[in-house]
Amino acid sequence: MSVTAAQGFEAAGVAVGLKSTGANDVAVVVNRGPKKVGAAVFTTNRAKANPILWSEQVIGDGLVEAIVLNSGGANCFTGSFGFQTTHQTAEKAAELLGIGAGDVLVCSTGLIGTGDEVFRGKVLDGVDQGIAALSTDGGEAASLAIMTTDSRPKRSVVTRGDWTIGGMAKGAGMLAPGLATMLVVVTTDADLDAAAADAALREATRVSFDRLDSDGCMSTNDQVTLLASGASGIRPDPVEFTSALTELCLDLAAQLQGDAEGASHDITIEVVGAANEDDAVTVGRSVARNNLFKAAIFGNDPNWGRVLAAIGTTDAAFDPYDVDVSFNGVRVCTAGGPDRPREEVDLTPRATHILIDLRVGDAAATILTNDLTHDYVHENSAYSS
Amino acid sequence: MSVTAAQGFEAAGVAVGLKSTGANDVAVVVNRGPKKVGAAVFTTNRAKANPILWSEQVIGDGLVEAIVLNSGGANCFTGSFGFQTTHQTAEKAAELLGIGAGDVLVCSTGLIGTGDEVFRGKVLDGVDQGIAALSTDGGEAASLAIMTTDSRPKRSVVTRGDWTIGGMAKGAGMLAPGLATMLVVVTTDADLDAAAADAALREATRVSFDRLDSDGCMSTNDQVTLLASGASGIRPDPVEFTSALTELCLDLAAQLQGDAEGASHDITIEVVGAANEDDAVTVGRSVARNNLFKAAIFGNDPNWGRVLAAIGTTDAAFDPYDVDVSFNGVRVCTAGGPDRPREEVDLTPRATHILIDLRVGDAAATILTNDLTHDYVHENSAYSS
Repeated sequence: MSVTAAQGFEAAGVAVGLKSTGANDVAVVVNRGPKKVGAAVFTTNRAKANPILWSEQVIGDGLVEAIVLNSGGANCFTGSFGFQTTHQTAEKAAELLGIGAGDVLVCSTGLIGTGDEVFRGKVLDGVDQGIAALSTDGGEAASLAIMTTDSRPKRSVVTRGDWTIGGMAKGAGMLAPGLATMLVVVTTDADLDAAAADAALREATRVSFDRLDSDGCMSTNDQVTLLASGASGIRPDPVEFTSALTELCLDLAAQLQGDAEGASHDITIEVVGAANEDDAVTVGRSVARNNLFKAAIFGNDPNWGRVLAAIGTTDAAFDPYDVDVSFNGVRVCTAGGPDRPREEVDLTPRATHILIDLRVGDAAATILTNDLTHDYVHENSAYSS
Repeated sequence: MSVTAAQGFEAAGVAVGLKSTGANDVAVVVNRGPKKVGAAVFTTNRAKANPILWSEQVIGDGLVEAIVLNSGGANCFTGSFGFQTTHQTAEKAAELLGIGAGDVLVCSTGLIGTGDEVFRGKVLDGVDQGIAALSTDGGEAASLAIMTTDSRPKRSVVTRGDWTIGGMAKGAGMLAPGLATMLVVVTTDADLDAAAADAALREATRVSFDRLDSDGCMSTNDQVTLLASGASGIRPDPVEFTSALTELCLDLAAQLQGDAEGASHDITIEVVGAANEDDAVTVGRSVARNNLFKAAIFGNDPNWGRVLAAIGTTDAAFDPYDVDVSFNGVRVCTAGGPDRPREEVDLTPRATHILIDLRVGDAAATILTNDLTHDYVHENSAYSS
């Protein structure tokens, strides 16, 4: 059900030829209210695609009525023509829905530099067809339309009493902090004001999508959007709502990790004993981005030396001779020296757990990443994306 | 000739079984004077191997008489036993040479965590045999003894008038700023005081080894050492000496790049038009470390979008819509938009040139890197290193 699980939302996914496969490639999600609240977080990449530049303006007043998303072209670095394409996309949706263009978000994903007249024509066609196809069970079709190299759609629903949160996500590569080539739309029928929606979204993404660092490469097009219709008539406690939203975002993040391009291991890097949360995140991210560590995991090699070498490049508080490292529950390094023999570690399961104890404090954080594989190299060298 | 090209030096390389192949694995270089000047730069990784911890103490007074290097084991994270091994190595060399242990540098390279009693016995044996084999034409044997996954030795000689600089290097992986798994020994018969040697070495490494960023992974064992014998009797102009030393270091850095693990392209990333040199280095490094860019080059794909996305993650001064990018002389991106068709770019040669013009100032810097290939993944996943 994804984005149509919550009351007050309609969605559609249609195929207009942006994908050569004939699969769905334009999605539309509309908030029928009664409230039309929106919040969004965007890539922190300074090279931002046209839809990001547009959506950053739209989100300013916290009022969003619809969102149009396309795969098959990022519309990034396509100049003023590309920005006009995004603008026309919002205007066409607004016209057909009888709303203002300034309340329509736009997202695009695909190859950078793609955004010519043919692309524009297809996207506008998709708006037409998508709005004609809107329905309260269009969530599944929409989730298919945003896929690029994803092997499967990502959907999640969380319900608390009488209100619901539903979401869809795409992204199997370039996942990184700052949200890389990740498009996420989350809808809820909870009654939220714009400030509450924004606060909950920022907190939920901070500990979910922002800690998914599949390959360290940050996209130009990432956007995570939360739309709230208030259709349940219930205004949840902010802490409870944030908790439910975080649960949903963590589920979607795990689905993104599990479908990362070419990966053969889903690696959870749990850092404990840190002086503070920032240190724990820094250490986890440094390990997650270390190609030698990632290649070792692909080779089922519990190479703790590469873990310590990666930690050593950070400015986190730690003593290299007082760090413990476990691979899948086996402590291979104690106090910066060898402990259990590496033969005891079984790295054949896809799920991989690295526990790093910095032994200086009580803070912790978990970073999700993937291994570096032949398939990753193949998928990112054999085709332009 | 490498480290024995300059007058006043003897060297040897011997095989003591640290390498299972039976190849040379311990090198000794001795400065016979008349001057015994030494300077060194070390990995900036906070997780430092035992030989680094030792050598940092030795170099303090600028006086170095000998250096012992071994492959086949990094002696890193091997506890106090490992530090004692390094200490004993220096003491044994000192005893045999009739000098002080505090004037003997030690370097190790190989698998982290390797440094048990067997390792110690072989290294000490290597000191014995190496010192017995010292000769003024031992530079070649020494350059073979420091190789690990290198497919060939790296040697270079630069002569200016009556003085000479010679050097050897090893390292085919983990090359990164801060000097990663790179061992370099450079000797000269120029007459330098310790301060001049240190200043020249820092400047030369800053623009050579520090700008070689093959895979972004920083080692625990890197060390670049300069030994000066003064045997030529000539005290060169500091600018001229630094220039010659830089030329030699750039040659060795290019040899390291050309032999990087699994690489199929040697990529020169030239950043011009930067506001300052730091910005140019930051931008070049960000592109050099972007796995998607590196995989694209492996696939002979001039994917300039990935270049701009990598630039966008930096804090350098630039406008994403006023950046030009060329691949091998073909301007594929002008002012942040498409220019020449990608079909015009020929990326089949191993030598690859990326030119990035930030168009905000006059500063420039060049970063050397490699592509991300199947062989890189294979070499770093199939074996522990």
